[in-house]
Amino acid sequence: MGNDKKIVLEEKKAELAGMQQLIKEHNFPVIVLIEGWGAAGKGTLLGRLIRDMDPRFYRVIPGKTPTDEDRRMPFIWRYFKDIPENGKFLFMDSGWMEEIVAARVSGEIDKDTFDRRVESIKIFERQLVDNGYVLVKLFLDIDRNEQQKRVEKLLSDKDTKWRVSDSDKLQLKKREKFEKYYKKCMDATDLAQAPWNIMLGTDEKTCAMKAFSLITDAIRKRIDSPVVPEIQDCSKFNLKKMPSLSEVDLDKKLTREEYDKELEKCRKKLRELHNKLYRAKIPVVIAYEGWDAAGKGGNIKRLTSGLDARGFEVNPIASPLPPEKARHYLWRFFTRLPKSGHIAIFDRTWYGRVMVERLEGFCSENDWKRAYGEINEFEKELVDSGAIVIKFWIQIDKDTQLERFTERQNNPEKQWKLTDEDWRNREKWDVYEDAVNEMIQKTSTKIAPWYIVESNDKLYARIKVMKTVIETIEKALSNEK
Amino acid sequence: MGNDKKIVLEEKKAELAGMQQLIKEHNFPVIVLIEGWGAAGKGTLLGRLIRDMDPRFYRVIPGKTPTDEDRRMPFIWRYFKDIPENGKFLFMDSGWMEEIVAARVSGEIDKDTFDRRVESIKIFERQLVDNGYVLVKLFLDIDRNEQQKRVEKLLSDKDTKWRVSDSDKLQLKKREKFEKYYKKCMDATDLAQAPWNIMLGTDEKTCAMKAFSLITDAIRKRIDSPVVPEIQDCSKFNLKKMPSLSEVDLDKKLTREEYDKELEKCRKKLRELHNKLYRAKIPVVIAYEGWDAAGKGGNIKRLTSGLDARGFEVNPIASPLPPEKARHYLWRFFTRLPKSGHIAIFDRTWYGRVMVERLEGFCSENDWKRAYGEINEFEKELVDSGAIVIKFWIQIDKDTQLERFTERQNNPEKQWKLTDEDWRNREKWDVYEDAVNEMIQKTSTKIAPWYIVESNDKLYARIKVMKTVIETIEKALSNEK
Repeated sequence: MGNDKKIVLEEKKAELAGMQQLIKEHNFPVIVLIEGWGAAGKGTLLGRLIRDMDPRFYRVIPGKTPTDEDRRMPFIWRYFKDIPENGKFLFMDSGWMEEIVAARVSGEIDKDTFDRRVESIKIFERQLVDNGYVLVKLFLDIDRNEQQKRVEKLLSDKDTKWRVSDSDKLQLKKREKFEKYYKKCMDATDLAQAPWNIMLGTDEKTCAMKAFSLITDAIRKRIDSPVVPEIQDCSKFNLKKMPSLSEVDLDKKLTREEYDKELEKCRKKLRELHNKLYRAKIPVVIAYEGWDAAGKGGNIKRLTSGLDARGFEVNPIASPLPPEKARHYLWRFFTRLPKSGHIAIFDRTWYGRVMVERLEGFCSENDWKRAYGEINEFEKELVDSGAIVIKFWIQIDKDTQLERFTERQNNPEKQWKLTDEDWRNREKWDVYEDAVNEMIQKTSTKIAPWYIVESNDKLYARIKVMKTVIETIEKALSNEK
Repeated sequence: MGNDKKIVLEEKKAELAGMQQLIKEHNFPVIVLIEGWGAAGKGTLLGRLIRDMDPRFYRVIPGKTPTDEDRRMPFIWRYFKDIPENGKFLFMDSGWMEEIVAARVSGEIDKDTFDRRVESIKIFERQLVDNGYVLVKLFLDIDRNEQQKRVEKLLSDKDTKWRVSDSDKLQLKKREKFEKYYKKCMDATDLAQAPWNIMLGTDEKTCAMKAFSLITDAIRKRIDSPVVPEIQDCSKFNLKKMPSLSEVDLDKKLTREEYDKELEKCRKKLRELHNKLYRAKIPVVIAYEGWDAAGKGGNIKRLTSGLDARGFEVNPIASPLPPEKARHYLWRFFTRLPKSGHIAIFDRTWYGRVMVERLEGFCSENDWKRAYGEINEFEKELVDSGAIVIKFWIQIDKDTQLERFTERQNNPEKQWKLTDEDWRNREKWDVYEDAVNEMIQKTSTKIAPWYIVESNDKLYARIKVMKTVIETIEKALSNEK
């Protein structure tokens, strides 16, 4: 019998190794999350799983306490930034569940925070699966006596003693509490496409065999019968009523004198607020979208002229690079989030998913239809973590765009700003306008609303943006107190 | 007079802003490092410099104390990872000089460490300049009385009080010591291509005018009269005498029984040592180079099968991505260095510079000739920071390669491993061999030597690599004690 197991295990190992080639061909990533009690054998199982795999195409991340930097970011950030790219495996030796359960039992986080984090995890896992990830979740279970015995054995040897962590000791002391919160988390995150698999850690080989089967089955299922993800109804997000673009009055203007005066006032105010933000450790995310030649660049320049240069960063967003294209589409934005007290400005954003990617066919219909909900969830995660999110749609009319294109074409110093693509996009004005209207309707949540900025007059637009930023920050700071 | 200055300043500001377009056209990056006494006006100067610039094409990094993660890496790592790409500006509000001087005065680092870090800075700055970076270094000087006055003013206002840092206070208390170490650092790093510019911070406008001129002059000089960098003589690096590839005996073999026995022994030993490395917090860098089909992949797989999966990472190195190509060629390796206690394995490495980039003309002759010295300096920085560096050249002969190519071609499961490029490279075997010999001669330093691994017999090669790793780690651990 022992020998049979060994042969089966060898076969299983080879089968999983073969799947590295398979997921490369089918171009999707796999995440294996191994959670479980301390000393239940997570490390041993992990070692067995990867033994025959090609180490160039997988990565292992051990569970670790969040660093100070991690704590300054949205809870899910440190897991999101490490998601694998298409064709690669990621193995996690304990992860997001262990983090929040240990934090809850030790009293580091309260009940509300725990519940919110469970919700974040649920969303994170669903989004991964919906975006093509295979997610296999294992929980290695041993009873308290067995755990005690194993921990004592580790402690008795000076070469293994150090491997018993504080958290392992806490588990033994507060077994029931851990059980309760593990259960809470697993119940809430037992998704149809990424269910929890509880496995007895008592017999290591049986456990390994089961793990191999679960992983290879999940991969085969992803290939043979892919599920079409559900599209959320955005009305559940507490939306703000917004006008359509055609209803916007583009005649608003400022004289040069009014502008100069306002600009000076806004700059002064912004500088003051930026200081306060820094001290209150509040991060700010400012998103810019708008028509070509709407004046985004100049607008951003005026806004930043009022900020402390040491506390902001402007992220110009172009087409995704290969490692970005090969991951969840929000990954390249997660990795550019501001630290607490800093301001991150995005010149074009994650909304590319429901505009250019939608209209140019760079993603499937289900992808972009799903994205409204996913983006609302992303922004909610930011706001929940304490960030301010402000989104501007810089609006001009079609005639104004033509004027500015023509001016760019005739001005040798500005010609580089105008590309053939701009002209091509212009031809699709109407379908773009429909897409923008849909986007604004579906993603103007109360916590992260869109501001439509009338920019036929650039001076008016710049002041409107600065004032909106000022008001939003002031409101957030007064809530802080 | 005041008004004249204002007009000149406006012109200067516009001129610098115009240079953003210029450096994009000429495709090189610019770093402006502003060092100086606390309250000397670094922030104000910085704000003035960038006021008219397009924020999408510059970045500002404020000086900050190293985090725990920073401290676990080579000293220069946290600066290297932030270098800008071609066409972009980076402004630093205090940087590497302030860090080491403050650390020295506060007693955090001893004299030897200080001297070693000065040397690291010197090398870092020279390498930046040699690799096309414009580096402008400013030091804002005010006397002790003036500084005291300014600090007191900041302290007297509750809105500015928080801006006086502990380091500012230390400067007032230990002015002479700071002076001494600033001078030491500036004297050592006053490079012809990146000299120090000491500017009086008493008159803010005069100071700004000078700064503008220094930056625009440096950019113009870089365009109009680029300097051809010097090539270091590698004999100064304490080299090990190495055989040429043709002298290597490729008949070495192991029987399958010997191999199985040795493999088991090596795995066990490695697992033990990996534990010890982790606890001693020693990082390990293992570099693999070798002929196509020499067996690197399989070799790496056997090596990692002896390691704890949670403590290593394999980095397959392909052609650089655009953001990598647009920076110093070592940047993409700096950003993949192992944390302390971890092992980073590179499947192909920074030696691409003196092999494929040299032979395919992807860099200039001066670039690759300079690279031997630069790479020796890079590896010295790693070793000085406590890392172990092990480099393997996996060697086969031309007939063996042909055999393996043919086998790959005829085996449907292995065909993907063989590309047209492999055949093209094979045609250039002789020039590659010359380049490899030159590389091994010039970069086998005593602190990071090459190991030539006879791999006509893959079994022999795998065991040799494992044994070499074991011996090197054992030696390092015994030195630790």
